[in-house]
Amino acid sequence: MLEKGVNISLLLESYGELLTERQREIVGLYRNDDLSLGEISEITGITRQGVSECIRKAEKELVFYEEKLGLQKAYEERKAVLGNVKSTVSSLLKNGDISPETAESILLSLEKAEN
Amino acid sequence: MLEKGVNISLLLESYGELLTERQREIVGLYRNDDLSLGEISEITGITRQGVSECIRKAEKELVFYEEKLGLQKAYEERKAVLGNVKSTVSSLLKNGDISPETAESILLSLEKAEN
Repeated sequence: MLEKGVNISLLLESYGELLTERQREIVGLYRNDDLSLGEISEITGITRQGVSECIRKAEKELVFYEEKLGLQKAYEERKAVLGNVKSTVSSLLKNGDISPETAESILLSLEKAEN
Repeated sequence: MLEKGVNISLLLESYGELLTERQREIVGLYRNDDLSLGEISEITGITRQGVSECIRKAEKELVFYEEKLGLQKAYEERKAVLGNVKSTVSSLLKNGDISPETAESILLSLEKAEN
């Protein structure tokens, strides 16, 4: 099983819809809500072994989708690029080159475009 | 079978990696290169019926992925939002509020962030 970490949570956000509802629920409990295998077993009525197996399989699928589609990677790259634009806009605002309204409108759009 | 059109080509770009190599090749020949079923049959050595079946199945998968992940929809939305920012930047440049270098740098980043 992979290390607990933020990564799988993000992959779950990107590709969770491609998992079954049960897989999504169990991986969410494990990765987002930080429940133990035993706790998830109690909640779902699946054996501890079954929970572990479900997580292993689901996470393998999530990693597969990221390898194929690279949404997370693309998101990080987009975030970095748009972050540069944000910095530029902030500087322009600070120097009085653009109005607060213009800056706000641009920053709001950049925020929207990030996802 | 779906109408020939640009839509499947775009879905193929977004999700093609999730198809088999053979599916990707055949749908590409049909949608991007505009070959007929008969022509694809000759090239690939698969029966016309087999080509038709392959395309039907592959395109159903592409539509399924778009329903689940909505990458194409997200791309269109992002493009529209960033288009607004581009317009604003162009106006700022035109009014002499920002330098050509600053405008160019921002527009280049927006271009990169579109995909």
